[in-house]
Amino acid sequence: MATIIVTENVSIHEDAEKLQKACKGWGTDEKAIINILGHRNAIQRKQIRQAYEELYQEDLIKRLESELSGDFEKAVYRWILDPVDRDAVLANVAIKKAETEFPVIIELSCIYSPEELLAVRRAYQSRYKRSLEEDVAAHTTGDLRKAFACLHHFWWHDIPICNLGAKLHIFFVGLVTTYRYDGPEINETLAKSEADILHEAIKDKIFNHEEVIRILTTRSKAQLKASFNRYRDKHGTSITKMLLKDESNVLQKALHAAIRGIEDPKKYYEKVLRNAIKRSGTDKDALTRVIVTRAEKDLKDLKELYYERNSVALDDAVSKETTGDYKKFLLTLLGKED
Amino acid sequence: MATIIVTENVSIHEDAEKLQKACKGWGTDEKAIINILGHRNAIQRKQIRQAYEELYQEDLIKRLESELSGDFEKAVYRWILDPVDRDAVLANVAIKKAETEFPVIIELSCIYSPEELLAVRRAYQSRYKRSLEEDVAAHTTGDLRKAFACLHHFWWHDIPICNLGAKLHIFFVGLVTTYRYDGPEINETLAKSEADILHEAIKDKIFNHEEVIRILTTRSKAQLKASFNRYRDKHGTSITKMLLKDESNVLQKALHAAIRGIEDPKKYYEKVLRNAIKRSGTDKDALTRVIVTRAEKDLKDLKELYYERNSVALDDAVSKETTGDYKKFLLTLLGKED
Repeated sequence: MATIIVTENVSIHEDAEKLQKACKGWGTDEKAIINILGHRNAIQRKQIRQAYEELYQEDLIKRLESELSGDFEKAVYRWILDPVDRDAVLANVAIKKAETEFPVIIELSCIYSPEELLAVRRAYQSRYKRSLEEDVAAHTTGDLRKAFACLHHFWWHDIPICNLGAKLHIFFVGLVTTYRYDGPEINETLAKSEADILHEAIKDKIFNHEEVIRILTTRSKAQLKASFNRYRDKHGTSITKMLLKDESNVLQKALHAAIRGIEDPKKYYEKVLRNAIKRSGTDKDALTRVIVTRAEKDLKDLKELYYERNSVALDDAVSKETTGDYKKFLLTLLGKED
Repeated sequence: MATIIVTENVSIHEDAEKLQKACKGWGTDEKAIINILGHRNAIQRKQIRQAYEELYQEDLIKRLESELSGDFEKAVYRWILDPVDRDAVLANVAIKKAETEFPVIIELSCIYSPEELLAVRRAYQSRYKRSLEEDVAAHTTGDLRKAFACLHHFWWHDIPICNLGAKLHIFFVGLVTTYRYDGPEINETLAKSEADILHEAIKDKIFNHEEVIRILTTRSKAQLKASFNRYRDKHGTSITKMLLKDESNVLQKALHAAIRGIEDPKKYYEKVLRNAIKRSGTDKDALTRVIVTRAEKDLKDLKELYYERNSVALDDAVSKETTGDYKKFLLTLLGKED
């Protein structure tokens, strides 16, 4: 369930006027901005943007960008965009970050529905005039090369290490380009045989990862869950537990995250929140991302899960780790009444 | 331009009745079937199927399958299906064929528009309850392994040969999953730098193919054409000519075909026709595929190109290589009047 408290029957015109007033003159009325936008759903926000444009011949998003700053600005920007557009922006930011872990990409391909991912790919193209996969591919190739260059000391290391970079690259490109079958039909024989393939690959650690990548990037979620279940039946432990044993390897880490996202999206997000909060300095980008993208979907469930797992309310944890308008805005999205 | 001569203002009901009469009792009136279906466009054919179903509570496609046989049956079957459905069938047949060259996949990803490819992927899912990419991926992994197993004699050969199979696999999966940007915008700097990457990769022959694969499977067609042009400017020869020098390698062959499809779809198809016809025994599947898939699009242009290149009319070449109802049907699709 969602967390945001949406005000029904609002006057879109009035909202646009209030936002203009909040931005006008010296200083900005951040509280008014939070009070309005933090209580409007995606459709209302879109209508407000349109009304604002008609009334003031100005792009509300650009105006807010110039008025606000820091984490608060980022959060408002992500919130006010159309959801598919926002996801396109999140993906683009992630790609440019030069990291070898792409949680955004794992979320789009393993948690979003195939149609949702496709909508984000379309939004990405219309915004950047390039495809999502070409940016992921162009970026990961160069960067992973650099990331692994330091390890190229001995010629006999060259092949497996190159392979690791290349495979991580293949994995991410495979994830963003996938258009999984979304029906309920599964093939039980295949689930058993691919559970075995996964087991063999994890045991061997390096050599057969291409099979794991193939399975994770092409099979339907229902089929994958069946394979994970057969894995658990046969080996008495979950596939993620097995993978965890070698978390130093970046590819294993990415595979692990993808499997977790497919197995249980809510648990996956709870862990992202937990890690973001417990990191020294707090991973604000991750915190903002989960709150903004899930506030209209299942953030209430994530809050419950967070409390169960940490014995601390998510609101309280967020309160402790953040400050100012950013904090107020996140808490509003988390459904905290003033 | 199209070749088929479409009869306008036909009575769909009458068509369905005539087809039923052609199939009824002993023997089949193949001539009637050719006369009707060979002069109806995709929309009319769909309406005929629907009218037939309503009138006779029977699937016209299944009925025709039971009445006809051999190459004629295959051609009629491909022709009567909805175009996206037919392409899904063609892809599925290609995947099961256990060949290492997949012209169907190259055509879908390098000649069809991104939206057309997507429509075929949807049709594939609704027909087979699996995604196109999962079948391509599952098939190529196993098969290419087998194809290259014979070469695994010496351990020091193991890596590059495995890589070749793995890369061909990555290439085909990359092709079917791509959703290229379809706009006209190109980046000239990128075109130059990627023309250089392509040149380096082709010179090195094996090691940098992952870059070639990345470029060919993700960039927009406009961008790729710009890169090919810069290649030609700088090296005085086309990239396809350079690749041709090593046609023994299956991956090079596939890369070559993809580049040709992107550069000039009509020339690409003319060559498919030429090779199909000149092969001893004639490659009927390829011949049927090109005629059926292009008859409503650009087969007239392909005929002109074929004549220019071979100094033989395509109709005459097809006449010489085929017989019976199959021949009559192909010639009808080629626009030959009775």
